[in-house]
Amino acid sequence: MEFNMSQSDPTPAETSHELPSGFRYAGATGGIKASGKPDVSLIVSDEPCVAATVTTTNQVFAAPVQICRDRSPRSTCRAVITNSGNANACTGKEGYEDAVTMCERVASMIGCDAEDVLVMSTGVIGHRLPMDKVERGIELAGEALGDSERHFLAAADAICTTDQFRKTASANFEAGGKTYRVAAMCKGAGMIAPNMATMLGVVVTDYPLTSESAQTSLKRIVERTFNRVSVDGHTSTNDTVVLLSSEVATENASDDENAVFVDAATEVSLKLAKMLVADGEGAVRFFEVAVDGAENDEDAFEIAKCVAASPLVKTAIQGGDPNWGRIVSAAGYAGPKIEVEKTSLSIEGHFVYRDGAPLKFDAAELSGLMKQSAEVKLHLVVGEGGGTSQYWSSDLTEDYVRFNSLYTT
Amino acid sequence: MEFNMSQSDPTPAETSHELPSGFRYAGATGGIKASGKPDVSLIVSDEPCVAATVTTTNQVFAAPVQICRDRSPRSTCRAVITNSGNANACTGKEGYEDAVTMCERVASMIGCDAEDVLVMSTGVIGHRLPMDKVERGIELAGEALGDSERHFLAAADAICTTDQFRKTASANFEAGGKTYRVAAMCKGAGMIAPNMATMLGVVVTDYPLTSESAQTSLKRIVERTFNRVSVDGHTSTNDTVVLLSSEVATENASDDENAVFVDAATEVSLKLAKMLVADGEGAVRFFEVAVDGAENDEDAFEIAKCVAASPLVKTAIQGGDPNWGRIVSAAGYAGPKIEVEKTSLSIEGHFVYRDGAPLKFDAAELSGLMKQSAEVKLHLVVGEGGGTSQYWSSDLTEDYVRFNSLYTT
Repeated sequence: MEFNMSQSDPTPAETSHELPSGFRYAGATGGIKASGKPDVSLIVSDEPCVAATVTTTNQVFAAPVQICRDRSPRSTCRAVITNSGNANACTGKEGYEDAVTMCERVASMIGCDAEDVLVMSTGVIGHRLPMDKVERGIELAGEALGDSERHFLAAADAICTTDQFRKTASANFEAGGKTYRVAAMCKGAGMIAPNMATMLGVVVTDYPLTSESAQTSLKRIVERTFNRVSVDGHTSTNDTVVLLSSEVATENASDDENAVFVDAATEVSLKLAKMLVADGEGAVRFFEVAVDGAENDEDAFEIAKCVAASPLVKTAIQGGDPNWGRIVSAAGYAGPKIEVEKTSLSIEGHFVYRDGAPLKFDAAELSGLMKQSAEVKLHLVVGEGGGTSQYWSSDLTEDYVRFNSLYTT
Repeated sequence: MEFNMSQSDPTPAETSHELPSGFRYAGATGGIKASGKPDVSLIVSDEPCVAATVTTTNQVFAAPVQICRDRSPRSTCRAVITNSGNANACTGKEGYEDAVTMCERVASMIGCDAEDVLVMSTGVIGHRLPMDKVERGIELAGEALGDSERHFLAAADAICTTDQFRKTASANFEAGGKTYRVAAMCKGAGMIAPNMATMLGVVVTDYPLTSESAQTSLKRIVERTFNRVSVDGHTSTNDTVVLLSSEVATENASDDENAVFVDAATEVSLKLAKMLVADGEGAVRFFEVAVDGAENDEDAFEIAKCVAASPLVKTAIQGGDPNWGRIVSAAGYAGPKIEVEKTSLSIEGHFVYRDGAPLKFDAAELSGLMKQSAEVKLHLVVGEGGGTSQYWSSDLTEDYVRFNSLYTT
């Protein structure tokens, strides 16, 4: 297996994406956003394709989430339509009808059954979609479809809301002597901005999958990537990740065979997930929490997540402060059992706490290393078990508070 | 039952506390704090008294916590010694020996068994106590003991760390034709400050209790007060609340009889708990989350806690923003089942969301009300069940981030 990773730059410079065959993309401006930025994104599969989705666990979920759940997994999908600027959440039956209408417009435009269209929305909660603008955007997107990288990037731009940069990545990989491609786009980490909901993502590939294996694969990919990042821990009403494969497999491949695809898609999605965190509202510094020695992987995950979410840890990262007391005590209240006498912590590779006791270290020097690091590494060992996990997070800054305190209703 | 509540002012003006008979108090300066502020607090019971404690759930806990657990509940307690400025946490066996020594010094000073002394610490994690200064402080406190209000306040001052004001409250109440008193002091909400751990609290009364009923009562009091507030959700290594009664009961009273005491102590403790939140680092605005209609009280508690802890809700409160989407969606990801179609929210008594749908309201007017309110009220109904709970929290401000980002190691 071999990866050739490409990844978009924060400053959209030249990029080179590995795009799977069979898909066309477009971004368009319907006028939903007051800013006049692109707000309708369309991905069309030339032939019926396999589609799987993973959606928010929030009990308060948006209309498009319901439609994604109802219509996937399926092997006759033809398109994904997304609008940004309005989440179509908490909008009742009328909101559901609007989401249905979005799919119908796309279906009549490209000539397919409306059930074969998926829909996603992101933006303000609690307001009806301005359907005239949405429909105008769909029409314009239909006219702008194309399979070049430029079209792919236009679609990726049009799903963004308060994102400061576009988030795309891709790779190719070998399986059974053939080369396949996987490309992905996503937007906005969690509910990071005022009234803006949602992490949305689309992964496209030409690796052959059945709808069943697409669903299994996507679940594994999301668990190892998008579910391991957090900006503020606020699960949105709209979170959705879609996986599309233009190659409809007729029978399920073995897990071993699919592992090549899952690994490649995981690498690509992890790049996006890290971009989400790096683009977190007000975020300056990015950090990884690695946990080993837990009783099992689930325990390690809970501990890593708790450390990554602690406001005191996040502010310490912001200050470049090797404040081990905050990190170790966060592990202590996470829930899963830890062996305190076997607990150790290293920051940027330097042990500061070993076997339940603090070590002497040069705090000023370590602080300097943290401040220079693009991705501060925290490594916790919490016992002698085999459980291991990683989690990625961003620091908590005054800018986050300032931005989210603005009166926006 | 009748309450006469008194409560200390943020600016320590004249106060009038109902002090139970049988206790003497002192605050002293041993020199543990670089600031030169009082750092040793001593409470002595003239006769053997009943003592119960509730301590942190953090698996990483400080040496004094271990001693409180080992020595309570008991009916032969004679003193509680507390130092501030150093948490004696993550200090290993030596730290445990230091805590034992603190109790021994008090015991030899007042003439009792060392086992009859409880100990608490708060301050920096991971540093050995400066025992010469601690012992000097204990000696000075022993010389300063007295039973007046001035002595009570001196003891309350000496447990503070980064607290901006002293936290005390008291009440008297009638039971069986007699008047009893309950007074309490506490300090610092959660791990709100750099490396500073701990909420500490002491409740003293002359209401007769057995050690068993003291323990049961304290658990009920804490569950309804200190366990329902949060500044940043970071459970410290040192949290401890002690209940002392100078009247040792010979047999357990009925729950009904004790209810009078529990209610009075709960009122007093709730005042302190709210002061903790109001004094949260950087906090400007205080808010209450009331949840009704959950399946049971535990579910209501989880939902209230999740809403109160959401950084997006806390920043909305800071901005005076009636941002119902953040509040409703936080209830949706809290965990317990909610009935989305029966979910309603009012802010400051004004409904903004009813039966799963947003209502029209004057956002500017409601924002004005929120900004004027000393305690913003959020009231969520999440279904038709009988579960109810309340939680108190403070807003998240730029000052919190600024303070906690400072390089302090």
